[in-house]
Amino acid sequence: MARWFARRRRPGTQTPRLRSREDAVQATRVDLHELAPSTADYLGQVAQLQLGFFMTLSFAVEHAPNDADRETVAEAAATALRKHQALLAWLRRTSDDPGAVLEPYARTRDEFQAILRTGTWDELLLGVLVARGFLDEFFAQLARGLDGADARDLAAIVAPGPEEDPLVGILHRVIAAHPERASTLAMWGRRLLGDTMLVARSALVTESKALPDDARVEPVYTELIANHTRRMDALGLTA
Amino acid sequence: MARWFARRRRPGTQTPRLRSREDAVQATRVDLHELAPSTADYLGQVAQLQLGFFMTLSFAVEHAPNDADRETVAEAAATALRKHQALLAWLRRTSDDPGAVLEPYARTRDEFQAILRTGTWDELLLGVLVARGFLDEFFAQLARGLDGADARDLAAIVAPGPEEDPLVGILHRVIAAHPERASTLAMWGRRLLGDTMLVARSALVTESKALPDDARVEPVYTELIANHTRRMDALGLTA
Repeated sequence: MARWFARRRRPGTQTPRLRSREDAVQATRVDLHELAPSTADYLGQVAQLQLGFFMTLSFAVEHAPNDADRETVAEAAATALRKHQALLAWLRRTSDDPGAVLEPYARTRDEFQAILRTGTWDELLLGVLVARGFLDEFFAQLARGLDGADARDLAAIVAPGPEEDPLVGILHRVIAAHPERASTLAMWGRRLLGDTMLVARSALVTESKALPDDARVEPVYTELIANHTRRMDALGLTA
Repeated sequence: MARWFARRRRPGTQTPRLRSREDAVQATRVDLHELAPSTADYLGQVAQLQLGFFMTLSFAVEHAPNDADRETVAEAAATALRKHQALLAWLRRTSDDPGAVLEPYARTRDEFQAILRTGTWDELLLGVLVARGFLDEFFAQLARGLDGADARDLAAIVAPGPEEDPLVGILHRVIAAHPERASTLAMWGRRLLGDTMLVARSALVTESKALPDDARVEPVYTELIANHTRRMDALGLTA
């Protein structure tokens, strides 16, 4: 299955880049530090987001077409719940009123999860793969911009695990069995990426607490979008 | 909250019993050993049962009236999923074809979970409390009747944890706020106990592989029913 993640060689990948990868990572970190919310707000929104993924994946467990897929999706649901519970435990340790911190993010959570569920079962899985892939990486990077010595521990909770996403195997099988689904799924993936980026953007703050300029945020996204493209490529879908 | 679990003193509890508790436990173990299924069948049905509880509790997470309750129910869902995954991992280690072992128990799982969901949200929680309370104890006892040195480890996976069931607090609050719900919930609990006992009975085998005689199974249930009564008492509900 490793080949699914192998990056396809494309025309132009040999072109010398203007900045080294190290420079780019450095620049991203600086940007994120300036835009990072308070640790409490960070915990509140990521905890809610993971709860949302848990609920959507549980819904998918329920509607799985067979028990093998059910098992696989349950594993993905368990991961989201584990992240949620770790973040919530952290919030309870550090906040006087965890409920008040969480409450403002319930609506975003529900609205976003409602979008993820508007399609068919395979579209739901692709949507979670796209959204969670992007947001787990995004919030792991954002954690490194938080104040405090715990930033690294928080990033470790949120970051995608070293294991392959269990949903990839199911989607690969669906697409292999129904190649005619590829264009619909590709379109759905693009739409979901847009919604996902709005969720990410809403987590960033500027000094004025207004939404940050897209131009300022753009470099933050560059690597995350490249990883998104890689995930879609791995499924044979055009990003 | 400890007082919820304190057993109410009733007329007659001081009457000398015919058999000591130790004798009763001994008798139960002998009976269960005779009636216990193969380890593979045990793993298959308990894994499916826990998956069912996970799905039903996830459904309840989704429909929770507020985020605090949602959190509590998610914790209960996580416990069921953890048990399911531990049993499944065990089955995968020991069986050539885990899917074939699991498959026959999918229908019982779905039928039983459908019953649990026929009522309101609080009825669903009470149903899970009743059914899971009974069945986790039942299957932990049944594990001790299995062949092999692993019986104790299996019982430890399945047995109810030392922590108070997180659902108790929610139900206690519902009943305190709406005392008029008590009689409906009590009736629902009684009905669910009946369905739960049928699930337990279907797990037992006799030499002829037919359903065992109820008279033979009766002693197995005595202590479990007493614990059920205690749980209902703790909620102020008549068992």
